[in-house]
Amino acid sequence: MNSVQNFREYRAKMNKIILAEDNLFFKRFYNLDTRTYEEGALSAQTKEMLGLVSSLVLRCDDCVKYHLEKCFELNVTRSQIFEIFSVANLVGGSIVIPHTRRAVEYWDLLSAQ
Amino acid sequence: MNSVQNFREYRAKMNKIILAEDNLFFKRFYNLDTRTYEEGALSAQTKEMLGLVSSLVLRCDDCVKYHLEKCFELNVTRSQIFEIFSVANLVGGSIVIPHTRRAVEYWDLLSAQ
Amino acid sequence: MNSVQNFREYRAKMNKIILAEDNLFFKRFYNLDTRTYEEGALSAQTKEMLGLVSSLVLRCDDCVKYHLEKCFELNVTRSQIFEIFSVANLVGGSIVIPHTRRAVEYWDLLSAQ
Amino acid sequence: MNSVQNFREYRAKMNKIILAEDNLFFKRFYNLDTRTYEEGALSAQTKEMLGLVSSLVLRCDDCVKYHLEKCFELNVTRSQIFEIFSVANLVGGSIVIPHTRRAVEYWDLLSAQ
Amino acid sequence: MNSVQNFREYRAKMNKIILAEDNLFFKRFYNLDTRTYEEGALSAQTKEMLGLVSSLVLRCDDCVKYHLEKCFELNVTRSQIFEIFSVANLVGGSIVIPHTRRAVEYWDLLSAQ
Amino acid sequence: MNSVQNFREYRAKMNKIILAEDNLFFKRFYNLDTRTYEEGALSAQTKEMLGLVSSLVLRCDDCVKYHLEKCFELNVTRSQIFEIFSVANLVGGSIVIPHTRRAVEYWDLLSAQ
Repeated sequence: MNSVQNFREYRAKMNKIILAEDNLFFKRFYNLDTRTYEEGALSAQTKEMLGLVSSLVLRCDDCVKYHLEKCFELNVTRSQIFEIFSVANLVGGSIVIPHTRRAVEYWDLLSAQ
Repeated sequence: MNSVQNFREYRAKMNKIILAEDNLFFKRFYNLDTRTYEEGALSAQTKEMLGLVSSLVLRCDDCVKYHLEKCFELNVTRSQIFEIFSVANLVGGSIVIPHTRRAVEYWDLLSAQ
Repeated sequence: MNSVQNFREYRAKMNKIILAEDNLFFKRFYNLDTRTYEEGALSAQTKEMLGLVSSLVLRCDDCVKYHLEKCFELNVTRSQIFEIFSVANLVGGSIVIPHTRRAVEYWDLLSAQ
Repeated sequence: MNSVQNFREYRAKMNKIILAEDNLFFKRFYNLDTRTYEEGALSAQTKEMLGLVSSLVLRCDDCVKYHLEKCFELNVTRSQIFEIFSVANLVGGSIVIPHTRRAVEYWDLLSAQ
Repeated sequence: MNSVQNFREYRAKMNKIILAEDNLFFKRFYNLDTRTYEEGALSAQTKEMLGLVSSLVLRCDDCVKYHLEKCFELNVTRSQIFEIFSVANLVGGSIVIPHTRRAVEYWDLLSAQ
Repeated sequence: MNSVQNFREYRAKMNKIILAEDNLFFKRFYNLDTRTYEEGALSAQTKEMLGLVSSLVLRCDDCVKYHLEKCFELNVTRSQIFEIFSVANLVGGSIVIPHTRRAVEYWDLLSAQ
């Protein structure tokens, strides 16, 4: 099992446990999370790019992976991904570099599938 | 003099002092900053949106103002701005709300000019 | 008009503008924000303390003010407030000190009313 | 050896090395760290909850684990833990979700022991 | 009264109120804060530079002002200050720029006195 | 292969992929990154210390490792390293402790080679 599958399975397993809890907040927050990226005044593709760059500057590797998957599904190109990474590194500084390395690796894993 | 002009003048005055310093880093960094948002695989408009959402989740009011101005020039609509704010608040949480209040106020100032 | 009133009025005015926008995210997010602090397995008082310490370590002055008001309404004592500040300064470090200064000032303004 | 033991042993081993160093700062800082969570105007339980929510919004997995252990010892319930997680996700945004997944997993490991 | 004096007076006034509180944490934390910057294996000057760059990347304007004052007293030159700013902007990204503008302004105020 | 080698090889491999991309931003940003730490008004050693403390307060483990290696090459002593860690923990708070544990471990690995 490769790291893409690992990530997906752990994520799915734990989300299931969280949503199984009798806690209204998480049901609503997860729902809001899904809906925020839906097509609207901005395209779903643009919104996923916004999610990706935000995750990068906030340096959340798992969030980056998730939005990379979405961007991949929505046909964002490798050149566009690198321009998103450029903005993230410019705005967030060199501390974003290690996260960029892992993001590039994950993008290449997605492309290789 | 209103707060849009205030912001622009202070920003211009201090940038001039910084670039007048005999320091190669700042010349290059400011240059990189400008070029990163130029049209490429992504449109300049999309890149400014990426800059705006990054600035919001990192909660930098002055950066937010700057990218709001650029988005305004590049014809981003009010509905689109609010969707960018939505992603920022979802990803960055309720601590982004006070910055969103100031961003909405600044956007309305730009629109009123 | 003192700074407590200023804060409240600006906050109310801008929230009204944001909620008047035809944007479902903000309606839901503001609603979620309110409900999360309601009495549950934890008391409303404990939840406001959690909101306060989170706002302090994330260094959001406006969020701090908001939760200080709520803590004040819910009869948190000055000694307890200082213990919350202690945890925030320990966990978040000396960069929390300037926010603590402003938080103490605001608490004293609330107490003086 | 499971991940709870791993965490405890690595933590203990490295803390010992740090405190063995001839450096007065760390002796005092570690001492302050311990004392800040002691019973006072707030109960030790409430203070550990404050430590937990702060660690979550600052997204420090090891700090989260440590405070989960303390909360577990001090009889915080699973429902209460989820309400602390709710505040953390609301205030800190969706970037807190991956840390919440790991926190739920760790809590379940502690409960299973 | 100029902004250097304003900053110093507000800071002194509020610190006095905080230390007057019957709270052992703050007495110890403030003491630790002072001692950490004392001459040791590193010079006091180097330590103040470390405090300055840390404050900048964490974007705490008041902390930046404080360490600028200390650096000024300890004869750090303007060229050195700009190299500290360079590291901060590189590591922390373009969101550090607005704080750099205010830092340069404050340094020039200190120099003009 | 130990963890020092692992870190270096992964870093080198991914940087090569990033620089092989037809993206001018990364070429310039990496170049700027290298040059910023060169001898100037401040010594290369002091600049690496600034890079280290910044990486610690921003809690970027890979950045910390990189600057630890540079500090090691430039003959920073263990006592000095611990004073840099002291400033980082004071300014950034107890959330820096887990990163300090990993930093001490990495320093000892470098020293043992």
